[in-house]
Amino acid sequence: MKIGIVGLGLIGGSLALDLRALGLEVLGVSRQEKTCQIAEEKAIVHQASVNLSLLEQAEVVFICTPIEAIAPTLTQLISHLHPAAIVTDVGSVKAPIVKQCSQLWANFLGGHPMAGNANQGIEAATNNLFTGAPYVLTPQANTPPAAVAKVREIVAAIGSRVYFSTPEEHDRAVAWISHLPLIVSASLIDACMSEENSATLLLAQHLASSGFRDTSRVGGGNSELGLMIARYNRPELLRSLTQYRQSLDKLIHHIDQQNWQEVQETLDSTQQARSSFFR
Amino acid sequence: MKIGIVGLGLIGGSLALDLRALGLEVLGVSRQEKTCQIAEEKAIVHQASVNLSLLEQAEVVFICTPIEAIAPTLTQLISHLHPAAIVTDVGSVKAPIVKQCSQLWANFLGGHPMAGNANQGIEAATNNLFTGAPYVLTPQANTPPAAVAKVREIVAAIGSRVYFSTPEEHDRAVAWISHLPLIVSASLIDACMSEENSATLLLAQHLASSGFRDTSRVGGGNSELGLMIARYNRPELLRSLTQYRQSLDKLIHHIDQQNWQEVQETLDSTQQARSSFFR
Repeated sequence: MKIGIVGLGLIGGSLALDLRALGLEVLGVSRQEKTCQIAEEKAIVHQASVNLSLLEQAEVVFICTPIEAIAPTLTQLISHLHPAAIVTDVGSVKAPIVKQCSQLWANFLGGHPMAGNANQGIEAATNNLFTGAPYVLTPQANTPPAAVAKVREIVAAIGSRVYFSTPEEHDRAVAWISHLPLIVSASLIDACMSEENSATLLLAQHLASSGFRDTSRVGGGNSELGLMIARYNRPELLRSLTQYRQSLDKLIHHIDQQNWQEVQETLDSTQQARSSFFR
Repeated sequence: MKIGIVGLGLIGGSLALDLRALGLEVLGVSRQEKTCQIAEEKAIVHQASVNLSLLEQAEVVFICTPIEAIAPTLTQLISHLHPAAIVTDVGSVKAPIVKQCSQLWANFLGGHPMAGNANQGIEAATNNLFTGAPYVLTPQANTPPAAVAKVREIVAAIGSRVYFSTPEEHDRAVAWISHLPLIVSASLIDACMSEENSATLLLAQHLASSGFRDTSRVGGGNSELGLMIARYNRPELLRSLTQYRQSLDKLIHHIDQQNWQEVQETLDSTQQARSSFFR
């Protein structure tokens, strides 16, 4: 079976390595000549090209570009695709992508591997990136069952834990555990930097340790990614932010009113609830 | 030199170990007979007792009890102290403690070692807990300079990075980097648990990975400690929360209004600012 991968960054490159290891023939497309060279030299793919026409024989194509390039890439890809080809993507927001892409290509299935690390680009490609990590597939009522079965088989073969949901449910779930934390964490850093007394700020910076390090990590990360998430998952992010403000306001109110029983109950419940996320 | 330690938990016990290693004579007091036995059997202290009278010959006494017990402990200790004895504490909030304790004992100096781990009790006592960690001392205008010099010498000898500030400045700085993150993080967990669709919540729990793990960590920690911090540092915590809400509301507004330039600028600035905390 021939597999096509468009976009040879950390995700596309790592996917290529794992699919090769399964004995599949992997064809890679990148906009950059240099990336194609590296992908071939390092045997990440069997063949690489800057031209989408390389994928004419591919049975399944993974679009691994940044979110904003997924639908435009599919638009360009269509004229090269075999009529029976299955197309899937790896974008971290699903509803707007699936809506656009399934109109462009009936045999399209949205996907989201929740794997990665702090590195970027083809040089960061690594084996077994997806082992044990969640991989969400988001079929709709009109998605061909054969396409779902084929993509499921492939992503299960690379060791992912496969979940199914609607695109909308996916976007709501990742708003809670991925996109909301990013804004919560960025706001923490932003608030600290508002301290007007420079000696106090300097003392705070000297005293910051693991608690601040962990809570501020995702808000101090890649701003491009944060912006894309806010743009593409805006309705669900705003919904979770509205709820977050209510939770925050409730705690502020109880602290302000010295309702210590209520503060204790909230902190007891959050202590217990967190363990339900990491069993 | 004889050093007294009241409260033989993680901090008191670890302090005892390091002070013994420096060749000082360490006398420990705990309310629990059992704790005294362990402290002597494990050679954490030279001598342990449930009676504060053990500390009659101590030159310096560290009060290492929970925050709410610091001033009551000092009240009971006074009748046993040598008139020249220096008393210090290790509480994580300073202004209310220093105010009460310096009225009880003129030779009192507030302190806060920013060290610890997830363990508690005498069994968790460990060598070198303070090595490289910040240790804030909070003298006031009327604190005897000899007391400041002596405590500084001791906490520097166990490898701490010593900082000086007023009690108020300490409380403001730790509100930013320690107490605010706790409420921000607890509110995140509380908000997620408000998701009414149980399938969506379950999916979110399955998909949660390192980003949620880190951002939720301090809000899912020891609720007793969180409560004590909120009670004792309430004014500064509320001040930082008010500012945090402004930062959050600003980001919510920009996302709602699709002011992507402003969102990008904020995320760029938080990305850059975080590095100033961890140089």
